[in-house]
Amino acid sequence: MRYLSETVERAINELAKLPGIGRKSAQRLVFYLLRIPKEKVLILTKTLNELKENVRFCSICYNITESDPCPICTGSNRDGKVICVVEEANDILAIEKTNQYNGKYHVLGGALSPLDGIGPDELRIKPLLQRLHGDIQEIILAINPNAEGEATALYLAKLIKPTGIKITRIARGIPVGTDIEFADEITLANAIEGRTNL
Amino acid sequence: MRYLSETVERAINELAKLPGIGRKSAQRLVFYLLRIPKEKVLILTKTLNELKENVRFCSICYNITESDPCPICTGSNRDGKVICVVEEANDILAIEKTNQYNGKYHVLGGALSPLDGIGPDELRIKPLLQRLHGDIQEIILAINPNAEGEATALYLAKLIKPTGIKITRIARGIPVGTDIEFADEITLANAIEGRTNL
Repeated sequence: MRYLSETVERAINELAKLPGIGRKSAQRLVFYLLRIPKEKVLILTKTLNELKENVRFCSICYNITESDPCPICTGSNRDGKVICVVEEANDILAIEKTNQYNGKYHVLGGALSPLDGIGPDELRIKPLLQRLHGDIQEIILAINPNAEGEATALYLAKLIKPTGIKITRIARGIPVGTDIEFADEITLANAIEGRTNL
Repeated sequence: MRYLSETVERAINELAKLPGIGRKSAQRLVFYLLRIPKEKVLILTKTLNELKENVRFCSICYNITESDPCPICTGSNRDGKVICVVEEANDILAIEKTNQYNGKYHVLGGALSPLDGIGPDELRIKPLLQRLHGDIQEIILAINPNAEGEATALYLAKLIKPTGIKITRIARGIPVGTDIEFADEITLANAIEGRTNL
């Protein structure tokens, strides 16, 4: 039988389409939205609409931005000789939070994954290669340390090598706060391989 | 420094206000919304706005509904002699899914919790008592088996007893698929206390 309103059912279905939100969470969200004042829901939906209205991808680095090129690409205080290659725009956010990097970025839009139909043409690799002229001195690969990331890093390294530009990769190792005892073998092997002088 | 657009920041903040969604999940949702076509986001926001527009509480049982009274209260196929008292409207959904109940409902809007400032006046107890006339034969308490639920059930039982209407409570016991070994003591005690004849 139909015991919920059709609108509620529809709202649950729409929310359940979002990543990380199952039907149970969607249901809980809908009941929450029904409880709070209408104005608060309107603010939420207006903000989400504006998100699609105002935000685009930077035509140089493919970061998300409201002005094109993005503030990092146009930033006079940013070192244009270094490009940090990341998979997604949210990786930029994580790196910026460290305050350890002052160069530019390039967002690939994912990692190579032939099984999922993601080949080099699906990623923004060509636009990256087009940026490798002039004064670029280093490409830092900040790509996720998993099988797809590994393949992508090797592929990019092969393409970039001939240009003579230095290619580096962020260190893989034991995260801070973890016990060596509990680290998986591959991480531990990476940490040993990447050991540094004291 | 500001590395994300102000709109993105605002969208993350708004989504992070929702229950069960932290800043990281909100960020992931925003990046997801940025990737999908604008039309899909518009469908989502339109549905959420309609939720507040179309859906209200039933004036009899306080279930959520698009028509007042709700389809369960007006349903001629529902047994009006039994009222199942639940804490929230989503409990109705769970009970309806069992196909085991064909009576009416009453949504309390929570459980007694003096520490959180939720006393009898904050719940829809008075409207429940006003419904206890005429042909009502049984009140089933389907209230959560925790401290607040326990207190609420006892409070309601005391109020309803004088009317002479039969009061029952859904069984507490070992859930299907669980090992007795792993059940907590209170649940096990409830299950033993509530044992049935074979």
